[in-house]
Amino acid sequence: MATSDRSILLNSDMGESFGIHSFGNDDSLLTLIDTANVACGFHAGDPSGMRETVVKSVAAGITIGAHPGLPDLVGFGRREMKLTVDEVRDIVQYQVGALKGFLDAEGVELDHIKPHGSLYGMVAKDELLMGAVCDVAENYGVAVFGMANTAHESVAIERGVPFVAEFYVDLEYNAQGGLIIARRPQPTPVQRAVERTLLALEEGVALADTGERIPMRFDSICVHSDTPGADKVAEAIRHILDTNTTSPRKAPHV
Amino acid sequence: MATSDRSILLNSDMGESFGIHSFGNDDSLLTLIDTANVACGFHAGDPSGMRETVVKSVAAGITIGAHPGLPDLVGFGRREMKLTVDEVRDIVQYQVGALKGFLDAEGVELDHIKPHGSLYGMVAKDELLMGAVCDVAENYGVAVFGMANTAHESVAIERGVPFVAEFYVDLEYNAQGGLIIARRPQPTPVQRAVERTLLALEEGVALADTGERIPMRFDSICVHSDTPGADKVAEAIRHILDTNTTSPRKAPHV
Amino acid sequence: MATSDRSILLNSDMGESFGIHSFGNDDSLLTLIDTANVACGFHAGDPSGMRETVVKSVAAGITIGAHPGLPDLVGFGRREMKLTVDEVRDIVQYQVGALKGFLDAEGVELDHIKPHGSLYGMVAKDELLMGAVCDVAENYGVAVFGMANTAHESVAIERGVPFVAEFYVDLEYNAQGGLIIARRPQPTPVQRAVERTLLALEEGVALADTGERIPMRFDSICVHSDTPGADKVAEAIRHILDTNTTSPRKAPHV
Amino acid sequence: MATSDRSILLNSDMGESFGIHSFGNDDSLLTLIDTANVACGFHAGDPSGMRETVVKSVAAGITIGAHPGLPDLVGFGRREMKLTVDEVRDIVQYQVGALKGFLDAEGVELDHIKPHGSLYGMVAKDELLMGAVCDVAENYGVAVFGMANTAHESVAIERGVPFVAEFYVDLEYNAQGGLIIARRPQPTPVQRAVERTLLALEEGVALADTGERIPMRFDSICVHSDTPGADKVAEAIRHILDTNTTSPRKAPHV
Repeated sequence: MATSDRSILLNSDMGESFGIHSFGNDDSLLTLIDTANVACGFHAGDPSGMRETVVKSVAAGITIGAHPGLPDLVGFGRREMKLTVDEVRDIVQYQVGALKGFLDAEGVELDHIKPHGSLYGMVAKDELLMGAVCDVAENYGVAVFGMANTAHESVAIERGVPFVAEFYVDLEYNAQGGLIIARRPQPTPVQRAVERTLLALEEGVALADTGERIPMRFDSICVHSDTPGADKVAEAIRHILDTNTTSPRKAPHV
Repeated sequence: MATSDRSILLNSDMGESFGIHSFGNDDSLLTLIDTANVACGFHAGDPSGMRETVVKSVAAGITIGAHPGLPDLVGFGRREMKLTVDEVRDIVQYQVGALKGFLDAEGVELDHIKPHGSLYGMVAKDELLMGAVCDVAENYGVAVFGMANTAHESVAIERGVPFVAEFYVDLEYNAQGGLIIARRPQPTPVQRAVERTLLALEEGVALADTGERIPMRFDSICVHSDTPGADKVAEAIRHILDTNTTSPRKAPHV
Repeated sequence: MATSDRSILLNSDMGESFGIHSFGNDDSLLTLIDTANVACGFHAGDPSGMRETVVKSVAAGITIGAHPGLPDLVGFGRREMKLTVDEVRDIVQYQVGALKGFLDAEGVELDHIKPHGSLYGMVAKDELLMGAVCDVAENYGVAVFGMANTAHESVAIERGVPFVAEFYVDLEYNAQGGLIIARRPQPTPVQRAVERTLLALEEGVALADTGERIPMRFDSICVHSDTPGADKVAEAIRHILDTNTTSPRKAPHV
Repeated sequence: MATSDRSILLNSDMGESFGIHSFGNDDSLLTLIDTANVACGFHAGDPSGMRETVVKSVAAGITIGAHPGLPDLVGFGRREMKLTVDEVRDIVQYQVGALKGFLDAEGVELDHIKPHGSLYGMVAKDELLMGAVCDVAENYGVAVFGMANTAHESVAIERGVPFVAEFYVDLEYNAQGGLIIARRPQPTPVQRAVERTLLALEEGVALADTGERIPMRFDSICVHSDTPGADKVAEAIRHILDTNTTSPRKAPHV
């Protein structure tokens, strides 16, 4: 399939401010992405910030997914915790439900669920934990965002839960195709993000941090909001998607 | 209207355990009450406890309302906080949405919203804050539980939000009809709760802590779960309601 | 007394980042101020951030005080809470003790206690609550920072606790001499801060937001770290203090 | 060495209530134990509860150690978290410092540090993390409580930090000498606790859950406060220690 026949979405984690502590370049990215993953209060975000992010996303004409995380504000959900299957299901359900309320208030639908940070990593490698995420996705009939060739994909497919594979243009992969997540990610040069995107779109490949070519299958590209220059990266990727795929950004609601 | 023509519900605050810290006599009360007000994680409760309380309540055949509180676990939501109207709306929406998710998972409806502790008191005396609670009730088309002759009732009526007036048999009232809420409530002798209930049902009156007779209009009686002997109080009130009103307890789902 | 005979300290609230969420211009201000008020984890700050702020402050050669706040991260301690005298003493003791541990580890002394945000405001108008703060100050034999002509001063004096009166160059005062604290403070133009400082130093007066001249007695000037341009304000005030008073900034430890 | 020549202390985790949520049989145990490990607010406990526990412990004439835990109230510090060495040092320092403040206020010394729950387990098997605990112990010149033949002991000895080996009479051990910690521990029959204690005192051995005899070297016995009947267990162990060792319980301060 030629690149130009594919539809690739651009998604970004949003609403990760916390009270007076602002975070990320949400306002810039809202005009560039197709769908927002909104933090739900456990790793970041708070009720008023969630409402504001939902309202802004609706105004920007983008869809909204839930971005539930581990219950660890100080660690920003990036410190792995040993949780039971029930606990994973319950914290995801709690957070997705909380976000759903703000969506109901604005009259829009929940689009998807994308686990955050270490929770994302935990459910990528544990089928039972990923099953718990799928329980919640089934409760709402929505897709789960995740990584191809991990428990994200295998369990979602087995359960009949729609699955959207992501490619990260601003994180490094290891030779096994795993993400290398730092506690405090470094900015990605725009040119590097562009090269990664084109390589992935045209050849279906990413370069590992050790140089190997690893297969990269994806339906959506994720850009992070919090690194300096994230808006420039998003702008470049948006341009590539608008010109090389069948998925130009939709005009906002009016 | 004769007592026997009235329908009076029995409600109780439930799910106020927190992690390993248990609280209240939930299991005993579930078989005696008509509707549960389930804590939503801000003053007490946690995701797994919320799910368990929802599952038990469904099994017991009772309806379920949300019991959102102030964001203050150490103070159990009993320390008044100065919040803006937006903040009250947002914390109530967040918590009610979180509970709604667990109800959706069990296929049952949200019955009502009853603010907890100091939030209950704050919105009883501030029409703008009560308006924020009504915003959330309208989002779900459900009733608000509260006290007659306060902003609870006046704002709900003005907004067209169904209102259920409560009578507390295990708390003291002052001469102005206000509740006297201690941080750590004392147990109520069964005989005293029975006398209060009969006086309220038969004469529409409660006795203030200073002895005055105050008018008491109500559609539901609240018994707390946490004081020693709360189950005995609930049992006695259940008996009165089953024999003196048109609202015997419904049989549980089977 | 001529201006040039006075010693005026420059203090600033520091360490109000929270996990990955950075806050303020701490690094710039550390080289300009005389003493840091370090957040202690309840309104902002976390254990690792506290240690880092202590280490940096020691390296910058400035003294360190504790900046305890209300237990309200989302509200940044700026939402008044009804607390008992015991609760105020206990949350202040807890936080000051926690900071003291990091000071002990670096071999430096606790310099003072300065309550944060709404706690600062609450103890300014309630002598019993201010007494609770003095209990903790006595436990360590340190001064309390606060506002002249409030319970801060009267109770400290009555108790024999050293008192350091502050003047805020980046906040507005009302005609009664009270501070007007916004949830999200606006930046102060440098010129305005300079004028306020000179007026206060030379005439012992501040201008209320409504224009009245109000008496302003102080031993220390506070500049906030979080508004854009806070470092420029601090730089200007530092210059004034170095040239107009007997308290040039001490050279850092070597 | 004959049993009767040994000195064995009885310790217990205390102050694990949280706000209005009570926990454990602290009042009963305070009269039976030699030293209390006081929770410091991260896995349980809150500032007012810490003060109350310190005051009661002083009145009971027992020594007081800090019982710092993981930052996880819902999980009661029993869900392992991936923390860096710095983070472990900083959360332990923060909590121990907080407790130290309440001890200073009562004029008593910090006796020791005993990590709680999963933190206890994490530092038992990771020398770098145990080193971080020792950093804090050195800051105060106090002992660490832990398990013989783990990183608890090896690192403490290497660092010259006094080490007190514990034996748990109300938890199961596996054949490797590791503790089996359930999220919600079961009560231990008094007779079983007595048998375990006598076997350990007389033969220096414990029975694994699979029946093997494992060597058990210890200077202190820990009884938990939270299981039903914990006070009866403590009473029986107290009697054994008073009659079989050189360490009868000291009379309380007067």
